[in-house]
Amino acid sequence: MPELRQNPLNKEWVIIATERARRPHELARKGEQIKPLPAYSETCPFCPGNEHLAPPLSMQIVREGKWQVRVVPNKFAALASEGEIFRRNDGLKRSVSGVGVHEVIVETPDHSKTTALLSEDDAELIIQCYHERYLTISRDPRVDLITIFKNHGAVAGSSLEHPHSQLIATPIISPEIRRRMEDAMRYYDDEGRCLFCKVMEEELADKIRIVHETAHFVALIPYASLSPFAMWIFPRRHMASLGQIHPEEISDLARMMRSVLARLYHGLGNPDYNYVIRSAPSENRYSRYYHWYISLIPRLTKVAGFELGSGMYINVTLPEANAEYLRNVEVK
Amino acid sequence: MPELRQNPLNKEWVIIATERARRPHELARKGEQIKPLPAYSETCPFCPGNEHLAPPLSMQIVREGKWQVRVVPNKFAALASEGEIFRRNDGLKRSVSGVGVHEVIVETPDHSKTTALLSEDDAELIIQCYHERYLTISRDPRVDLITIFKNHGAVAGSSLEHPHSQLIATPIISPEIRRRMEDAMRYYDDEGRCLFCKVMEEELADKIRIVHETAHFVALIPYASLSPFAMWIFPRRHMASLGQIHPEEISDLARMMRSVLARLYHGLGNPDYNYVIRSAPSENRYSRYYHWYISLIPRLTKVAGFELGSGMYINVTLPEANAEYLRNVEVK
Repeated sequence: MPELRQNPLNKEWVIIATERARRPHELARKGEQIKPLPAYSETCPFCPGNEHLAPPLSMQIVREGKWQVRVVPNKFAALASEGEIFRRNDGLKRSVSGVGVHEVIVETPDHSKTTALLSEDDAELIIQCYHERYLTISRDPRVDLITIFKNHGAVAGSSLEHPHSQLIATPIISPEIRRRMEDAMRYYDDEGRCLFCKVMEEELADKIRIVHETAHFVALIPYASLSPFAMWIFPRRHMASLGQIHPEEISDLARMMRSVLARLYHGLGNPDYNYVIRSAPSENRYSRYYHWYISLIPRLTKVAGFELGSGMYINVTLPEANAEYLRNVEVK
Repeated sequence: MPELRQNPLNKEWVIIATERARRPHELARKGEQIKPLPAYSETCPFCPGNEHLAPPLSMQIVREGKWQVRVVPNKFAALASEGEIFRRNDGLKRSVSGVGVHEVIVETPDHSKTTALLSEDDAELIIQCYHERYLTISRDPRVDLITIFKNHGAVAGSSLEHPHSQLIATPIISPEIRRRMEDAMRYYDDEGRCLFCKVMEEELADKIRIVHETAHFVALIPYASLSPFAMWIFPRRHMASLGQIHPEEISDLARMMRSVLARLYHGLGNPDYNYVIRSAPSENRYSRYYHWYISLIPRLTKVAGFELGSGMYINVTLPEANAEYLRNVEVK
C-alpha cells in the first residue's frame, strides 16, 4: 500500500507511490546522453579570454597567474545592486523595491569540467568562493537572506553550459523560510536541541538512507524525499550558516560534493539538477536552533497539477532503494 | 528597477524582473508547433472502443447513446482505494497509510479535442462531471481534501495526450493549505469580509490585470503572478467549494474555461499548462472566509535553484502586459 510520509523540517507530505514504483536505474539517462563538452567555447562569456563579455569582476581566485574561480555580477540581474529599499502598501497590493545582489560564480576556466569531473582541489576553490562571498555580502545591512544555488542543465533552469553557480541576496525573507525557522525554534524550545542534529542522528542510526559520509558531512536521501534521489547534505557540527564553516570543513565539503555529484553523473547519466545552500537568514546566522545544509535535487520527474494545487508531492521511487543505489555507484 | 510583489492569498513574494523583461509574444511557441492530433488513436486507453484498457467505470455522461465524458479510477493510482487509515510516529519519521481516491476524467471521446477546441456544450459536461464527483467523494469521511487538476502536455507532467483531467482525494491536508486557510480566517476576523472577494473587487476596479469576464466568473493575472501568464479564475459569488456551484454557473464556467484556454492556445501556440480547482478542505466546505477558485499555470519557464531554495520566485514578464496580450487574442 502507498504511504504518506512527512518531512520533519517543513511538515510537507509526500505520497510514496509504491504501486507505481520505478526502479532507480529506470530514471537514468541512457549512456549516449553523457556527451563531453568542449574544454573551450568561443562564444561563452565564462571561458578564459572572453572575460570582457561578462560584467566587471567581484572577486577571483588565481593560481599560477591564471584565474580558477571568478565571481561577476549577473548580466541579467533579477535585482538592482544600487538603490533605496522602500515598501508600498496599496490596498492588498504590496511591494518592495527590488534591491539586492545577484552574482554568478564561474566555477572553473574549463568549459567541460562540471563538479563531478573536477579534482578535489579545484572543487575546494568553489566552496571557498561561496564562503567568502557569503561573509562579504552578509555585512550589507540591506540583505535579509543569501541564497547560493546551482542550476545544472536546461531542465534545471540553466541557459549557459559553462559550469557556474549563482548567489542572490534579497531584502525580504519568504514566508516559507520564516515558517521553517519558526518550526525549528519551536522544536528547540520543546526538546532542548537542534531539530536538524536530531534528524541526522536518527538517519545515522537507521543507516538505510545514507548515501555517503565524510569526516565533517553526511549525505542522505530524506525519509520523506519529495522527488527521486533528492538529497540533504548536513554538516555534522552544529552551525546556522555557511559563514561559520572552518577551513578543514571547506575541503571536506568539496570532497563530499564531488562524491555525490559524481554518483549522480555516473549512476544516473549526468542528470539535470539543482542544489541550494540553505543558510539561516542574516539575523539568525548564529542561531542555536537552525542548522545549515545543502538540498540537492535531480530534476528527473515533473511537478504537475496535483503538487501545485495540494501542496503535497508524489514520489514514484523508494528513498531507501535510491540511497542504496547511489551508495553502490563506483566513484573514481 | 525590479520590484518585489506579494501574493495576498499566501504571502509569497515574486521578483518582477523588469530588467530582463520578455515581451509576451517571445514566450509563445512557434506556429508550426500546433500540430493537430488525430481524432482517434488505436492504442489510447481513453479512445472509444478501447474502454477495456482502462479500469471499470466510476461514472459517465451519455448523449445520444454514446459517452461524452467518463470517469475511471487511475490505473496507476497514487493512493489505494480500500483500507484503514492509520498513523505511525517513529521518532521524527511520521507516516499515514496511503488511502484515498485517484480518478481520471476522460473529457471527450475525441482524441484531438483539447478544451480550447471543444464546443461550449461539450466543455460544460466536464465541469458537470467535476461537480458530481466532488459531491460524491466529499461524503467519504476518510477524505480531507479533494484536488481536481489537469496536466496538459509533457512539460506539465502529462504522459497521455488524450484530453483528460484527474481527481485526487487525500486523508491529509498539507501545511500549505492549512496556512492559506489560517491567513484567510485571520483576514475575515480582522476585516469582516472574505479576502478573495476583496482581491476580486480591487482587481475589477484596477481593470489592467483582467483577462476575461463572464456573467459569473472573472479571470485575471494576479498582481504578484509567480510565472508568466499564470491566471486566477474566481466565481463572483462567494462559495468555499466547487460543491456549491449552481447549474447556470456550471455552464458559465465552461464558457470561461473555453475562452481562457483558447486565448492560451491561439495566443501562445498551445503551451503546456496545469490548472487546479482550489476548493476548501471538506471540513471547511461552507466557510465564510475561504473562496474557491481555479489556478491556471502555463509552464513556459522553469523553476530553478533560487525558487527551490528561497521560497521566492522570479517572473521575467509584467503581469499587466500579459493580461493585455491575452485580452486581445481573438477567440472564435
